[in-house]
Amino acid sequence: MGLKDVKDLSMDTGVQQMLAKAREEGIDTAFDRAAKMNQCGFGSTGVCCKHCLEGPCRIAPNGKGAQTGVCGANVDTIVARNFLTTVTEGTASHAEHAREVAHAILEAVEGKAPYAIQDEAKLKAVAQGLGLNTEGKNVNQLAKEVAIKALEDFQKQHGTLNWLKFRANSKSVENWKKLGLLPVNAHLEITKAMARQVMGGDADPTNLLLGTVTMGLVDGYAGLHMSTDLQDILFGTPKAVKAQYRLGVIKKEMVNISVHGHIPLLAEKVVEWAGKLKDEAKAVGAQGINVVGVCCSGNELLMRKGVPVATNYASQEMPIITGALEAMVVDIQCIMPGLQTVASCYHTEIITTLPYVKMSGATHVEFSTERADEAAQEIVRKAIANFKKRDPRKISIPNEVTEAYAGFSVEQIVEALKAVNAEDPLKPLVDAIASGQILGAVALVGCTNPRVKQDSSNVALAMELIKNNVLVVATGCSAHSLGKFGLLSPDGLQYAGESLRNILTAIGQANGLPALPPALHMGSCVDNSRIADLLNALANYLGVGIKDLPVAGSCPETHHPKALAIGTYFIANGVDVHVGVNPQVTGSELVVNVLTAEKENFPVTTDGLFGGKLIYEEDPVKAAEIILNRIKAKRKALGLS
Amino acid sequence: MGLKDVKDLSMDTGVQQMLAKAREEGIDTAFDRAAKMNQCGFGSTGVCCKHCLEGPCRIAPNGKGAQTGVCGANVDTIVARNFLTTVTEGTASHAEHAREVAHAILEAVEGKAPYAIQDEAKLKAVAQGLGLNTEGKNVNQLAKEVAIKALEDFQKQHGTLNWLKFRANSKSVENWKKLGLLPVNAHLEITKAMARQVMGGDADPTNLLLGTVTMGLVDGYAGLHMSTDLQDILFGTPKAVKAQYRLGVIKKEMVNISVHGHIPLLAEKVVEWAGKLKDEAKAVGAQGINVVGVCCSGNELLMRKGVPVATNYASQEMPIITGALEAMVVDIQCIMPGLQTVASCYHTEIITTLPYVKMSGATHVEFSTERADEAAQEIVRKAIANFKKRDPRKISIPNEVTEAYAGFSVEQIVEALKAVNAEDPLKPLVDAIASGQILGAVALVGCTNPRVKQDSSNVALAMELIKNNVLVVATGCSAHSLGKFGLLSPDGLQYAGESLRNILTAIGQANGLPALPPALHMGSCVDNSRIADLLNALANYLGVGIKDLPVAGSCPETHHPKALAIGTYFIANGVDVHVGVNPQVTGSELVVNVLTAEKENFPVTTDGLFGGKLIYEEDPVKAAEIILNRIKAKRKALGLS
Repeated sequence: MGLKDVKDLSMDTGVQQMLAKAREEGIDTAFDRAAKMNQCGFGSTGVCCKHCLEGPCRIAPNGKGAQTGVCGANVDTIVARNFLTTVTEGTASHAEHAREVAHAILEAVEGKAPYAIQDEAKLKAVAQGLGLNTEGKNVNQLAKEVAIKALEDFQKQHGTLNWLKFRANSKSVENWKKLGLLPVNAHLEITKAMARQVMGGDADPTNLLLGTVTMGLVDGYAGLHMSTDLQDILFGTPKAVKAQYRLGVIKKEMVNISVHGHIPLLAEKVVEWAGKLKDEAKAVGAQGINVVGVCCSGNELLMRKGVPVATNYASQEMPIITGALEAMVVDIQCIMPGLQTVASCYHTEIITTLPYVKMSGATHVEFSTERADEAAQEIVRKAIANFKKRDPRKISIPNEVTEAYAGFSVEQIVEALKAVNAEDPLKPLVDAIASGQILGAVALVGCTNPRVKQDSSNVALAMELIKNNVLVVATGCSAHSLGKFGLLSPDGLQYAGESLRNILTAIGQANGLPALPPALHMGSCVDNSRIADLLNALANYLGVGIKDLPVAGSCPETHHPKALAIGTYFIANGVDVHVGVNPQVTGSELVVNVLTAEKENFPVTTDGLFGGKLIYEEDPVKAAEIILNRIKAKRKALGLS
Repeated sequence: MGLKDVKDLSMDTGVQQMLAKAREEGIDTAFDRAAKMNQCGFGSTGVCCKHCLEGPCRIAPNGKGAQTGVCGANVDTIVARNFLTTVTEGTASHAEHAREVAHAILEAVEGKAPYAIQDEAKLKAVAQGLGLNTEGKNVNQLAKEVAIKALEDFQKQHGTLNWLKFRANSKSVENWKKLGLLPVNAHLEITKAMARQVMGGDADPTNLLLGTVTMGLVDGYAGLHMSTDLQDILFGTPKAVKAQYRLGVIKKEMVNISVHGHIPLLAEKVVEWAGKLKDEAKAVGAQGINVVGVCCSGNELLMRKGVPVATNYASQEMPIITGALEAMVVDIQCIMPGLQTVASCYHTEIITTLPYVKMSGATHVEFSTERADEAAQEIVRKAIANFKKRDPRKISIPNEVTEAYAGFSVEQIVEALKAVNAEDPLKPLVDAIASGQILGAVALVGCTNPRVKQDSSNVALAMELIKNNVLVVATGCSAHSLGKFGLLSPDGLQYAGESLRNILTAIGQANGLPALPPALHMGSCVDNSRIADLLNALANYLGVGIKDLPVAGSCPETHHPKALAIGTYFIANGVDVHVGVNPQVTGSELVVNVLTAEKENFPVTTDGLFGGKLIYEEDPVKAAEIILNRIKAKRKALGLS
């Protein structure tokens, strides 16, 4: 079993250092497990069906062997159904995220949970967007009404999502309505999708793929947008913030706690109590308590509080391997079950917090919004108690850190543009796009995947785009990749094309900064909503559809079903979405044709229905070329040179 | 590729005849497809994980090769998570079934859909059970309130299911509450289960298995019970009815329409319009219109209207192969996608009816409750128009039919017992159990599976049980198996042990029949609720828990995820559940130990938590022995000999 050189596993030298350390210490990490796992040739192209006990059935490629499952499902049905299952899994994750935050607001304003509304302006804006009368209501009354509107999106039996009506582009809505794709409520549609993909349910591959679009809309509006809006209300809308990246943010002399997961309800409280219990840390000999972020919990804290980020998805085990991490606190999603196995070789305590997300061998401190303070205190105190349990021989912290800016909410971007044009803030941006100074915009989003050299595709694609004067916005673990390699810093402008560099420098200087970075960090994975809001604002400003804008999305190092749900949401809005990893659909020509619209005159394609399509290309440079060509074609259609 | 002799594929000689005909005509059926499909050795034991794009990962048996997925999930996590996925799929199907019927009632009483409440007594009983005040309300008012209570079980954000509070055994509820397993609402729990099984979600196998129990409760109360109760209200509570079974129910001189699927909203209307459009059938030369049932749509119509049943799941393609079926109308679940391929070789028109369940090449007539009459008419007229398209050379209808009794709702059983003891109807049954005249009761439920010789395990197990004086009740395709082979007829008593024969003869004669059959057909798969209601009544009568009763459930020819959801529901109530097909869990010792409680002193088992467990045994005779021994043990614990 030939393991790869650590240099080929990650671009991040700190991660490389930890990977080498792990091997020396006899510890398997995700990268080594990926090398050892023989990926199934059937499943990796989507042709394996596990929907009943007649199977599992598998369709062999090239017409050899059985061409249908026992029930008679052909390869197109099987692949389309599996894709729907995957997108449903992602959507369910985001919907539950949003609903949790809605309940937290309700409990907060009812005095049942120790949170307070942080952003009254956003609250008012969201309330108005939802059609609520804001006159004469105090913050708590209004927040309660907003939370109830949110919960309706999990309860209503007719009509469509409040959040879709609030946030969606009107031209997109018209199209979805015409196609019969509008979701009624999130939980209902998720359940219906499950009932649809069950054995003996929907067998029409195109119909199944249209079902994924409804899931995408649920993901977008009752997942992403609702999560972001409610979190901004509860914790504040992000503003530009400077912070640090890479494993060097772990400090030898501090009690180190990493927060990992997605829903910031707990992570915010851990930061709060880390501040409050500083003296207890000093009492055990530490200089203080250092909270560092991993994955999207990291993004949430980075965006709102400038909390440093240790690393992103695929290398989430590395902070433990430094030997200096006292606790890793997790909530849900992207939490590797292997964490506990690694942690058991060190003094690190893995702490699970949700009743429905546990891990054998880990410590479980049950979190609920009602007892948020108690849980956070208990967790921080456990970390403090672990400080003394360190094995000094095992401590080795890579020393590199990189500076980065984050916090680019739409509100912050508009604020920055106002320094250029106070009356008409979008004008400078639109003018730059119209003139070609900015060729277009691409959102770099999503994951890293232990099968892909970490950060390399994210960074290479971003470099290629900014070199061609494409403005990059970023979220999720992809943003972390860019952060680690200087692209979230004004220094990164050295890689940008001249006209992009000029405009970002001009906007930056109008705001008293040397320049804006070439990639704007817009938040966590749910904050892809912010990108959609920006596109919606631009489309409305120009009086066109989102599908007409010279923009695209890209998830070069795809790993999680959520990424496919988010991608589906953007395609439904007419935005091309690139993935750098096979989304396990290549076993069906029909599905590939519908999703990628590569075959001319194919009767039903995403491009034909929505004006945006899936692009699957593993090579980031080639992917950039394809994206650039589509952007140029969309520019041309808009009459831009 | 050696195909098996048709005699080894099904016990039903009519099915055998059609299988031979299909082969002559060059048509693949599910049985041949099963023989050709090389079942995946990984997936069939549950050790294959497709929850993200790092995989698919597979754990090799016997410690060879990778022992964790790329994320670090071990085989126990993978198997438990897959089991949760499967049970969630089944649960979603039943929940959507129930919800559809709730909406139909609401639309009916609001005058928007052409249905009327058929069973006021059941309506009142259900309303009272739900705690509604029934005084001074007319039927439509009350039905509306019941439907709203039903929809609350898909909307509420706190508390637990109305239908669980209504129908569940109080001792069971206490136990579930203690274990924190009570579901809040069906859609919420299904979504949460999906969010839980997503990559990086729950990694604790025992916790995941407890999650399946919550799914089982959703399946039971917001699926099975709610569906049955609402369907009885809308279409009438079944009463004993005599009908016919097997392919011979298809009539050469008639326009033949088979209804296939699960939710009777459409099937009922097809029967209605088949009656109304008789003259149009005569106009094309037919003697009339003959509706025959397949699967659970068949059961619903059999139970309430005595509509004959052509066949059950695995041989659903056979009615087409007779060459005399004008249309097969399907709604949802257990609909083989291969039907259209077979139908394309004959004049049969496959008609799909739900927007989210289509089939490439099939005719789609969109059904909704609002336009139920229009859709049913259109469908029946399509069938009539197809009568002339028959190819006489392809017509060959097996001539056997078997007589059977069905319609044994709890209400009907109690009614029959009242003829023995009007004051205390359960007493004769309880006395017979107490004295050992009836050793216990077993529910034979669920599917057939093209991998198992059709009907053979269902029938063999039933024979073995009734020989040992066990009362058999049956539902689903398993009931169809018993029907085909005479066990739903008083003639079947020839196979029964003497004391069982005596008591069933006595009860039958008290009701003016020669005898009751040895197996009582209690309905469709959702009507497993009736079995639970009967158990609850017996447990309450005796002042014990359901778990203490000398009863069990068995699904010898398991194929569908719904069967596993139903089984989980019964286990949660303390009823042993036998399956004759590997539920794809054998790859994990831990999961097997938790579910089957076969290893002594294993810390957490279903038997320990609930008093019922999973029994996996492929041989029906051995399975009967295991079941009989458990029944005897439970008798002993009750102090019965």
